[in-house]
Amino acid sequence: MDDKDIFKRQNFGRKMGFGQSPGLLVIDFTVGFNDPDSFGGGNISAAVNRTVDLLTFARARGMPIAHTRIVYADDGSDAGIHCLKVPKLKGLTEASPLGQFVPEVAPRAGEIVVRKRLPSAFFETGLHGILHARGIDTLIIAGCTTSGCVRASTLDAMCHGFRPIVASDCVGDRAIGPHEASLFDLGQKYADVMPLDDIIATLGTDRAVA
Amino acid sequence: MDDKDIFKRQNFGRKMGFGQSPGLLVIDFTVGFNDPDSFGGGNISAAVNRTVDLLTFARARGMPIAHTRIVYADDGSDAGIHCLKVPKLKGLTEASPLGQFVPEVAPRAGEIVVRKRLPSAFFETGLHGILHARGIDTLIIAGCTTSGCVRASTLDAMCHGFRPIVASDCVGDRAIGPHEASLFDLGQKYADVMPLDDIIATLGTDRAVA
Amino acid sequence: MDDKDIFKRQNFGRKMGFGQSPGLLVIDFTVGFNDPDSFGGGNISAAVNRTVDLLTFARARGMPIAHTRIVYADDGSDAGIHCLKVPKLKGLTEASPLGQFVPEVAPRAGEIVVRKRLPSAFFETGLHGILHARGIDTLIIAGCTTSGCVRASTLDAMCHGFRPIVASDCVGDRAIGPHEASLFDLGQKYADVMPLDDIIATLGTDRAVA
Amino acid sequence: MDDKDIFKRQNFGRKMGFGQSPGLLVIDFTVGFNDPDSFGGGNISAAVNRTVDLLTFARARGMPIAHTRIVYADDGSDAGIHCLKVPKLKGLTEASPLGQFVPEVAPRAGEIVVRKRLPSAFFETGLHGILHARGIDTLIIAGCTTSGCVRASTLDAMCHGFRPIVASDCVGDRAIGPHEASLFDLGQKYADVMPLDDIIATLGTDRAVA
Repeated sequence: MDDKDIFKRQNFGRKMGFGQSPGLLVIDFTVGFNDPDSFGGGNISAAVNRTVDLLTFARARGMPIAHTRIVYADDGSDAGIHCLKVPKLKGLTEASPLGQFVPEVAPRAGEIVVRKRLPSAFFETGLHGILHARGIDTLIIAGCTTSGCVRASTLDAMCHGFRPIVASDCVGDRAIGPHEASLFDLGQKYADVMPLDDIIATLGTDRAVA
Repeated sequence: MDDKDIFKRQNFGRKMGFGQSPGLLVIDFTVGFNDPDSFGGGNISAAVNRTVDLLTFARARGMPIAHTRIVYADDGSDAGIHCLKVPKLKGLTEASPLGQFVPEVAPRAGEIVVRKRLPSAFFETGLHGILHARGIDTLIIAGCTTSGCVRASTLDAMCHGFRPIVASDCVGDRAIGPHEASLFDLGQKYADVMPLDDIIATLGTDRAVA
Repeated sequence: MDDKDIFKRQNFGRKMGFGQSPGLLVIDFTVGFNDPDSFGGGNISAAVNRTVDLLTFARARGMPIAHTRIVYADDGSDAGIHCLKVPKLKGLTEASPLGQFVPEVAPRAGEIVVRKRLPSAFFETGLHGILHARGIDTLIIAGCTTSGCVRASTLDAMCHGFRPIVASDCVGDRAIGPHEASLFDLGQKYADVMPLDDIIATLGTDRAVA
Repeated sequence: MDDKDIFKRQNFGRKMGFGQSPGLLVIDFTVGFNDPDSFGGGNISAAVNRTVDLLTFARARGMPIAHTRIVYADDGSDAGIHCLKVPKLKGLTEASPLGQFVPEVAPRAGEIVVRKRLPSAFFETGLHGILHARGIDTLIIAGCTTSGCVRASTLDAMCHGFRPIVASDCVGDRAIGPHEASLFDLGQKYADVMPLDDIIATLGTDRAVA
């Protein structure tokens, strides 16, 4: 019996489906995470490219969109425990070239931008309140890394009462093993996981979201 | 280059070390998670057995100890998105046999008991405030499942400013693939991961914790 | 120029209005808070009586309803800083007579019950996720005390993205000075404040809430 | 029997005292809140002046110091419910003159700066994790407004496990009624409230904080 059978036998992995009002969350697609010599590698650049299509789809529908990037204070005054484990995170300051959005998937005017220090887009950022105030109940998730900030954000999206839909070809990781292991866990326990084509087919393309 | 090399080359996986004042967190070692026909299986029962030794060590030192279990309302009124994905979680009510602590590792009088509905021991439980009010800065973590509640709790422990130390032989999962994948991720990014023997050797046995 | 003029001149106190999907939150109407010799007094008992009407209205409309009460562990293991300031809070345990709901306004089957240790109904209780998962965007608030748990919960309701509507004759405090001061602050900065009759008139009585 | 007697009879208002490791939190002393024609007035400017002395004391002792200011996105994309009630908050953007720190009490290099959108310095800002990671257990609080961001931050400091000490002559409000009402509530329920001279006398001046 393989891992998937074990979860199936215990009745994990049910499909939750979409709610009434979807939004889009794009996590940490910044220069440093798109660079194999910095925080990137693996299938991250492929996920960035595919997210261009996802953004086009979401913008055409008028879907609310939020983007995150990691920003530490210039003087490191807000560094915490995470920087003991991964010290170079502190280098991602407001103006650091590595911390800027990849131009192809950068936020447009009116889209939400969340600065964060920790993996989850929701941990102590106020994002859930902003999204709830806009009536969003479902969150399509793209970004990187799958085993890091995407996974943490997906879990917290669920905990805050959103239905998380992970766009499997719009998320990436610097190594494929952790990428696949996290997609498995997310799909079994916390989110619906599907490629962008299925998301588009599910939502349809002929009606705007209120 | 394998996955570990990729993370090493990017300078992940630094050792954070212990702080001054450790506590112990034991996650979801309840009857249902110790039963392969319910939520259990894999190496969970082995982790329960090893945690008996960890608890003996922690109690002898007077270390503050917290235990968690999942508790939903009898009428399901507090069920959220997670129950769309894993509906049988709702069966873990206050008095359900599956939701009771495994006797060998059950809390003793004066130890903290946290009821939770979601994976993280910290998500909306107030646990971090209780631990901080006791001056704890380091958290040894045992319990199950490695890829579920242990991982989520370890991440949040780090986010709340604790140094998380995962006791690798005191955590378990219903399937070994997700167990090993999560230990890898945790050790690279969020926590120090080591077997109980190393934790005991590091803390020593001849002095009490203040 | 009195206090109200100062706030008006600075353009505080705007009316926010109701959203599409209201819920009801009833805070800490327990035996101890209804007893002037315990935590009660002032206009709390009058607010309890008026909340009977509010519950009748909300139940007739099928409005989701949540109730809170304070519950500490029997052995005091989860006491924090608040208990240094108000030690007798620790006596409100699961089975303590003072901690039980006042029968006239007690929860019915299917209504949400939140156990909390701290003033806000939202602080580390997961309540916001439960309410958001049900699509609630507006929260009518009753309970006690106005300057304590009602105020803290109203502020957090706003922060979590709900529109808080304080039912001014359904909230009470052990002393009238703090009651009135907090109603003023809430109405200027965080919530719409209005008597139950106005809430009923605004929502109408001839249609059910989805 | 006046309000104070009611609280005394119910055994509120106990003194909690200092812990081992104090920090300082200075809330929203920005140009707009120091200007009676913007968000200021009342005794706020007097509190700013007195906080110069508090900062001198804290810096001489090497006490960790955090400052907050309100910052909304330039395009208003992160505005929530609070802006329905107080729309002009949205004008406090990163570069707005009204949102800059008052020079006399501005942060120095290495001090923590928290950008926030909501009243509490702790609500979804990650501040508690930063402070806990530095071992702080007690938080001296200055800033404005007493009935708004100071009160909300003090309550949350307590909930997160810190001992809050409100410096009564270093906090101010645009109107004196709400200022005094909130100092009363804070001292009865959530914090020790004392003038700066008493804080200095309690901590002593001849030893550094570890």
